[in-house]
Amino acid sequence: MDAQEFRRLGYQLVDWIADYRENLERLPVMSQARPGEIRAAFPDHPPLHGGRMAQALAALERDVLPGITHWNHPSFFAYFPSNTSYASILGDLAASGLGAQGMSWQTSPAATEVEEVVMDWLRQMVGLSPAFTGVIHDTASTATFTALLCAREKVSGYAQNTEGLQSGEAPLVVYASDQGHSSIEKAALLAGFGRSFLRLIPTDENHALRLDRLQAAIDKDVEIGLRPCALVAAVGTTGTTALDPVAAMADLAEKHGMWLHVDAALAGTAMVLPECRWMWEGVERADSLVFNPHKWMGVGFDLSAYYVRDPQHLIRVMSTNPSYLRTAQDGQVSNFRDWHIQLGRRFRALKLWFYLVDVGVAGLQARLRRDLENAQWLKAQVDAAPDWERLAPVPLQTVCLRHVKPGLDEAALAAHNLELARRVNEGGKAYLTPSVLKGTQMLRVSIGAETTERRHVEALWEALRLAVR
Amino acid sequence: MDAQEFRRLGYQLVDWIADYRENLERLPVMSQARPGEIRAAFPDHPPLHGGRMAQALAALERDVLPGITHWNHPSFFAYFPSNTSYASILGDLAASGLGAQGMSWQTSPAATEVEEVVMDWLRQMVGLSPAFTGVIHDTASTATFTALLCAREKVSGYAQNTEGLQSGEAPLVVYASDQGHSSIEKAALLAGFGRSFLRLIPTDENHALRLDRLQAAIDKDVEIGLRPCALVAAVGTTGTTALDPVAAMADLAEKHGMWLHVDAALAGTAMVLPECRWMWEGVERADSLVFNPHKWMGVGFDLSAYYVRDPQHLIRVMSTNPSYLRTAQDGQVSNFRDWHIQLGRRFRALKLWFYLVDVGVAGLQARLRRDLENAQWLKAQVDAAPDWERLAPVPLQTVCLRHVKPGLDEAALAAHNLELARRVNEGGKAYLTPSVLKGTQMLRVSIGAETTERRHVEALWEALRLAVR
Repeated sequence: MDAQEFRRLGYQLVDWIADYRENLERLPVMSQARPGEIRAAFPDHPPLHGGRMAQALAALERDVLPGITHWNHPSFFAYFPSNTSYASILGDLAASGLGAQGMSWQTSPAATEVEEVVMDWLRQMVGLSPAFTGVIHDTASTATFTALLCAREKVSGYAQNTEGLQSGEAPLVVYASDQGHSSIEKAALLAGFGRSFLRLIPTDENHALRLDRLQAAIDKDVEIGLRPCALVAAVGTTGTTALDPVAAMADLAEKHGMWLHVDAALAGTAMVLPECRWMWEGVERADSLVFNPHKWMGVGFDLSAYYVRDPQHLIRVMSTNPSYLRTAQDGQVSNFRDWHIQLGRRFRALKLWFYLVDVGVAGLQARLRRDLENAQWLKAQVDAAPDWERLAPVPLQTVCLRHVKPGLDEAALAAHNLELARRVNEGGKAYLTPSVLKGTQMLRVSIGAETTERRHVEALWEALRLAVR
Repeated sequence: MDAQEFRRLGYQLVDWIADYRENLERLPVMSQARPGEIRAAFPDHPPLHGGRMAQALAALERDVLPGITHWNHPSFFAYFPSNTSYASILGDLAASGLGAQGMSWQTSPAATEVEEVVMDWLRQMVGLSPAFTGVIHDTASTATFTALLCAREKVSGYAQNTEGLQSGEAPLVVYASDQGHSSIEKAALLAGFGRSFLRLIPTDENHALRLDRLQAAIDKDVEIGLRPCALVAAVGTTGTTALDPVAAMADLAEKHGMWLHVDAALAGTAMVLPECRWMWEGVERADSLVFNPHKWMGVGFDLSAYYVRDPQHLIRVMSTNPSYLRTAQDGQVSNFRDWHIQLGRRFRALKLWFYLVDVGVAGLQARLRRDLENAQWLKAQVDAAPDWERLAPVPLQTVCLRHVKPGLDEAALAAHNLELARRVNEGGKAYLTPSVLKGTQMLRVSIGAETTERRHVEALWEALRLAVR
């Protein structure tokens, strides 16, 4: 493909995306494809001869689009809002066009320095003090994994440089709530701690970590000679957006020499609103925290914001320094390859920059407040409806509910609510996530797509009530 | 930004990228920016009000471009070729526009199934048997880390579900050559093995792993009660593209019950050429292998191809299965979130698909052969020039050389060659990587940008000789 063809097809694709976004509301939210159906439209073998981009663009519309579940649809209420704003699409396009690697400062100084600028903007936006320094990670899973690795090395005195976790010394223990995200469990297991040394602490009636149970677990571990190592506080759990008591957890972390990591993957975006910042009170005492601008905020996946208090520790854990990566500027500049697991780095800061200059802080705040109000509206409807039950507080944009049909036992209620979810999702007018909260089957409504207005939430509520009949 | 503005700015950005690429040759390859210079052009605080995309596009040209080191420049000879073809830019743009998450099959069936199709195409292209199944990872660093985690769990009998590496059992050991990529060391340390249980085996005069030394290391470890766990074979080391003896290493891995991982990050692309496949003879016996279509091939960063023989083992190590991620299709389909560390997944397969249908297998083969011939041409020049020395064989597209000035000792020669690299790189006409090979300072020329023709290699050779004067 030459530049001329790129211009022509590029225009065509920009128009295709704009058309897609403009017509999104008419498409079924969840793909109606059956397993194997999309694959069957493709040849079994790669093309020997090229020059088939025009056909590929046609196939994108004809064969691929039916297999897309539309995360930017205004009636997408499943999982989490994954907003890919127009501005961030353009930022990502610029990054692809430049094709620059930002693994070291020298390999594209702008990739490092624009990231430093926008990650500091973001820090200011969520009200964190300058004690925190940010770096872009791909996902919160990776960032939380990084946090547990940093915890492991801090508490073990950099055992990775000697016998790692294989020294036979007293085992290190990780603590989190039983409502924490699955990535915490995954990170603890991958980091080598072992499930026997991962404590998932019970939660209270609001689904927040119980401090008494945490304290008891730590005391018991210390008594039998184990070493408390890391504590993960969830600000906005995945199930219900429950809020762990960060400040009190920071006290315990400090007392026992543990690393405190705050997982605010979704909820971090809410901290752009000063009125929400009480939710993570104590966050300034965290050793690390992560939140995802690629969720509710509006920056296309993938862009996680990882903030640490001590970048030198992060670098010491993550750095290798082979001769082929050394440059003349080392020591004067940040080489972000040493701030995470990967070596290569895409210029992701561009999409965050473009997004922020397009939306502005005030514009983003207005949208987030709209979403919070929509959640409160749905909460009020559920609370007022006799046969519906709300299963958790609604501090943010997620509403957890179920329909209670008189005379059904718990198993039958679970089946009934799963069936409701199936009807709504397969109907194509909305998409939500059925999930289980401490044994109770619920319907989880996560509000916050950029295009979701009150009328879409109203339509969802209508669809849910219709599904009952 | 509304759809209309997106169309307008999208066209503008497509043109900007095409202009940039067409004018690339006139720009200095390595950014001439000084530390802090790019950052200084940005405001200290985020904008309160938005609507500033036009200004951002102007700043992209004025403030960001001078801070870009141009990886797609025809005279880029540093690190590795990181080709971001026009077709893959379009594929990535389509992925951004759709904004779909492919973490589970249901969250966008096409994201999973197109990936299955193109990863199978790629498997066929490099001559791997259907015994291998592929999944897209972000980088080879992550893939190699995943491989070591899978090795750890296989040899330990899934110790992550009990005491992890903290059981006090006999330590597990990892083996690789001392020319292996830094990501192997990083992965072994992060996986908790500890540096004491990582053996970097000496290499022969061609910089390939020495089997006798590997065998001796294993024997010694077994004798003292350690457990050989993982063996990493480099096909094309980063320093010199040396080729470890994969088949013989497979024998040893089998004999000692070790996991064999093949790191062919750069060289895997060469296997699209049947005449290169001798280089990884024995690869069919690997448990896992990785190579990077985002390097020499032409698919924009990030897209690493990770192939495994036993996906069920990978899933068992990587899977968590919280209720909010369960779907009706589980069991019938692939949920790629369980095939790597991250949970969220961008629709990366689109850029590989677009690239392959645009270039075709034959087109790609022709370009790779051109690059191999260019490397052989440079090799011949170095070999024929009296004061230049070639430091390693040239099986692929990397030529390692130095200038030998009579009368200089090794330290002075090193300084002299570093100075040559500085002159060439700061001159802006070409960019190469100074690196150290077993104590010898060398100049490493990695050929293979899409736009690099013979004349660019000739110009580099001329620039090197001029730099001496």
